[in-house]
Amino acid sequence: MRDAYHESLRSLRADLVQMTGLVRAAMDDATQALLDADAGTAEGVIEADTRIDQLQMLVEEASYELLARQQPVASDLRVIITAVRISADLERMGDLAVHVAEVTRRRYPNCAVPSLVRATVTRMAAAASLMTTQLERVLSDDDVTVALRLETADDDVDAELRQIFVALLSPEWTYGVEGAVDVTLVGRYLERYADHTVSAARRIVYLVTGSWPARAVN
Amino acid sequence: MRDAYHESLRSLRADLVQMTGLVRAAMDDATQALLDADAGTAEGVIEADTRIDQLQMLVEEASYELLARQQPVASDLRVIITAVRISADLERMGDLAVHVAEVTRRRYPNCAVPSLVRATVTRMAAAASLMTTQLERVLSDDDVTVALRLETADDDVDAELRQIFVALLSPEWTYGVEGAVDVTLVGRYLERYADHTVSAARRIVYLVTGSWPARAVN
Repeated sequence: MRDAYHESLRSLRADLVQMTGLVRAAMDDATQALLDADAGTAEGVIEADTRIDQLQMLVEEASYELLARQQPVASDLRVIITAVRISADLERMGDLAVHVAEVTRRRYPNCAVPSLVRATVTRMAAAASLMTTQLERVLSDDDVTVALRLETADDDVDAELRQIFVALLSPEWTYGVEGAVDVTLVGRYLERYADHTVSAARRIVYLVTGSWPARAVN
Repeated sequence: MRDAYHESLRSLRADLVQMTGLVRAAMDDATQALLDADAGTAEGVIEADTRIDQLQMLVEEASYELLARQQPVASDLRVIITAVRISADLERMGDLAVHVAEVTRRRYPNCAVPSLVRATVTRMAAAASLMTTQLERVLSDDDVTVALRLETADDDVDAELRQIFVALLSPEWTYGVEGAVDVTLVGRYLERYADHTVSAARRIVYLVTGSWPARAVN
C-alpha cells in the first residue's frame, strides 16, 4: 500500500516533467512561428494546448486522490501541494505560448516582429527556452543550484523587455501603433512566461530547503 | 482540539476575505490614480502591496501548519488547498494593481489614458471593482450563483478590451506609440485581473459542487 503511494508521488513528478517538456515545445514553436510568420505552426501550438490543460487536470485530480485516500505525512503533503501549484504555473505558461501564437495568426501573412526588435525578441525566446529546460532539471533532480540560476536568467529577460520599450519609443520605430501593440504584448507574454519558470523553481527550492529564496518575484 | 481546527479553517477563510478587500481597494485606487494622473495615490498602492503579500504568505503557512498538525479529512483538504490557490490569485491581482500604478507614475504629470479610451477604461475599472466585490461574496458565503455571474462580467471586460484595440488602430488614435504601449498594458492588466476573479470563484464552485463549471478560462 505504502509502495503504491510512493509510486503515485513519483508518477506525479513524472507528469510535471512531461508537462514542462510540452510547454517548452509549445513556446519554442510559438516563438519560431512568430519570427517566421508561420501560421500553420502557430495553429498547431493553439491546438496542442489541450494536451497541457488535460495534464494539469490530471495532476490536480491525482493530487486530490492521493490526499484523500492516504494520510500523507507533512513532508509529502508539501510535495503534493507544490505539484498542484507548479502544474498551475505550467498550464499558464502553455496559455502564454498560445497567446504568442495568436499574435502570429492575427498578423499573418505579415510578420509581427519588425527587424528593429528581431534580435531582442529572438534572445528573449532563446532565454525562455533555456529557462524551461533548466526548470525540467529542477523538477526531475530537485537541483536547487539550477533553480537559483534561473533568477539571474530572469533578470536578463527583464532587461531585454526594457530594450524593447526603448526601441518602441525611439525615432527608429517606424512600424506604427499596430506594430507597437503586437510587440508590447509579445514582450509581456515572454516576460510572464519567464516569471513562471522562476516561480515554479522557487517552489522546489522551498520544498527542498524549507525556506524561500531571498529574492521576491513579481 | 477539533474545535481549534475548525476555528483555524474559519480564520483561513476570513484571511482570504480580508485579502480580497485589500486587493479591491488597491485596484480601485490604482485605476482612479490612473484616470486622475495622481502619482501620490499610485505610490500608496505600490507601498500597500506588501500587506497583501504578507497575507498571502500567512495563508500559505497557516495551510501548511493545518495540514501538518492535523490529519484533515478529504473535504477539508480540498478547502485548504483551495485557500492556498485562491491566495495566489489574490496576490497576483495585487501585483496587477501595482503594475497599473506604475504606469501612472511613469507618465506623471501626464495622464496615461487619452480621452478617446477614457470611457472604456473607466468601464473596465468599474467592472473589475464589481467583480472583486462579487468574489468577496463568493468567498464569504460560498455563493455559487454569484460565481457563475462573474463569468458573464468577464466576457464584458474582454469585449471592452477589444474596444480598446479597435480605438488604438483607428485613425482617431493621435496619441502615438507611447500612448499605445501604456493603454495596451493597462488594458491587459485589467483583463488579467478580471480573469483571476473568475478563476478564484471557479475554485469555490468546484469546492461546493464537486465539479468544474463548464466554461474554460484562459
